[in-house]
Amino acid sequence: METITIIGTGLIGGSAALDLRKAGVPKTLIGVDQNTVNAERALALQLVDQVLPLAEAVAVSDLVLVAIPVTAIAQLLPTLLDLAGPHTVVVDFGSTKGQLCEAVKDHPRRAQFVAAHPIAGTENSGPAAALHGLYQGKMNIICEKEKSSEAALATALELFTVLGMNTIFMDPKEHDKHVAYISHLSHVSSFLLGLTVLDVEKDEKNIFALAGSGFASTVRLAKSSPDMWAPIFEQNSHFLGHALGQYIKHLQRFQECLQNKDTAGLYQMMQQANQIRPVLEGIIPPVK
Amino acid sequence: METITIIGTGLIGGSAALDLRKAGVPKTLIGVDQNTVNAERALALQLVDQVLPLAEAVAVSDLVLVAIPVTAIAQLLPTLLDLAGPHTVVVDFGSTKGQLCEAVKDHPRRAQFVAAHPIAGTENSGPAAALHGLYQGKMNIICEKEKSSEAALATALELFTVLGMNTIFMDPKEHDKHVAYISHLSHVSSFLLGLTVLDVEKDEKNIFALAGSGFASTVRLAKSSPDMWAPIFEQNSHFLGHALGQYIKHLQRFQECLQNKDTAGLYQMMQQANQIRPVLEGIIPPVK
Repeated sequence: METITIIGTGLIGGSAALDLRKAGVPKTLIGVDQNTVNAERALALQLVDQVLPLAEAVAVSDLVLVAIPVTAIAQLLPTLLDLAGPHTVVVDFGSTKGQLCEAVKDHPRRAQFVAAHPIAGTENSGPAAALHGLYQGKMNIICEKEKSSEAALATALELFTVLGMNTIFMDPKEHDKHVAYISHLSHVSSFLLGLTVLDVEKDEKNIFALAGSGFASTVRLAKSSPDMWAPIFEQNSHFLGHALGQYIKHLQRFQECLQNKDTAGLYQMMQQANQIRPVLEGIIPPVK
Repeated sequence: METITIIGTGLIGGSAALDLRKAGVPKTLIGVDQNTVNAERALALQLVDQVLPLAEAVAVSDLVLVAIPVTAIAQLLPTLLDLAGPHTVVVDFGSTKGQLCEAVKDHPRRAQFVAAHPIAGTENSGPAAALHGLYQGKMNIICEKEKSSEAALATALELFTVLGMNTIFMDPKEHDKHVAYISHLSHVSSFLLGLTVLDVEKDEKNIFALAGSGFASTVRLAKSSPDMWAPIFEQNSHFLGHALGQYIKHLQRFQECLQNKDTAGLYQMMQQANQIRPVLEGIIPPVK
């Protein structure tokens, strides 16, 4: 991992750059970004040592990290593998895995690619949002590990170990289904909460001064970048659509209880939801 | 404010007790709680100096804070004013205001009551959840100030100043409508997110290890106490029902875009939701 290229020098790629450099891993960190303003900022912030055009960067790299919106990853991956030397390893950081794996499934250099999803981020974006330790102690998912060469997999695992992550393995479909629930749905719920409140309170700008920490916490993800999330939602529309359907059903059931003054019903739903506490704390399994 | 009674020695009442004592305001802090376990814990944690039966406590107090579920407040308020001496001030901390004001509107001692909503809390409950500084720097709403005596209002304002809060005044209906959006709806969205994910992932207990900080933030309020929230939702069902209806409509519109692969539509909704950032930061008014 002497020379690492990071495609996409925003929050995700930039944070990886910070920790790789801190660990003293790469001799050279190269940034590639079609957004020249971001590329220049990444250079100015010393996230990367140099900025190069894609082909040039890939040609000299042992490892290429792809941290751009997932639609762009799907489009770029075949080209990347075309450009890659025989020992270059390509790892993506995308939040969906099915379509990305599909995009390169017949590529002659498929074995040089590792499909990963390091589960980390914030609601901010761009090179200036890059954080030290963003990945530390968090989970990473690698899909189709059997389609990556042993060498490529070993390089990827070393990378995620340097970032402080725990890696597990999963089938791409299984991955996409689970993240629809444990990640994508919470983004949808937050985006639409923000939109709903803005919509109704638009003439009451001072009202937001009243918003407590609860609102702030629940609506935080509504600040996330549409450039990143629209492609994720598009690619995961099947599983996310299912998750969102379930969410809407539950909200409608709650609405019914509310309208029927069925406080016992409301109480029961909240009590069931409370099980999220021990489950998140890993103390007891969820009640069935 | 030499002798203050706190009815309800949980998170809300207990946190007020901590900061009142720290400020050296009351000579005696009396706790009243129909839950004897909580009352004993509050005493053991030194949140209060003594625990007394309701009538006895109110009889000796200059100020009575009511920090119990809102249905219980509505039931108790007339009795409290019956029990109050001619100079005792009663202040409630409830998250709804319409029905509480209604409950005492014809009471001969209405002027001794101040209807307040200090907007602060956490997802935890009970005496052990009490926090120093919970109210510091946050907003408080007082409703129907014209129905409180000048002396009662002055006492309440002093109380909230000691707690570090900024007080504004509002009509009870206006209050209930706005908090439906900026507080109650976020609790509903979080409770149901928790329930939806538990429901689908119930057989996948290990999946929650994958949940990132985004899920944790959005689902945090799902840990809140149903004892506190079921009465709030019941009392604010009119305005909350409207808010929830709007939220469901927005989610359905998002679902449609998702199913029609209308990524531009998804993008636009997220971009609108992004306006929550400058609005919360108070930088620019929301886009209309």
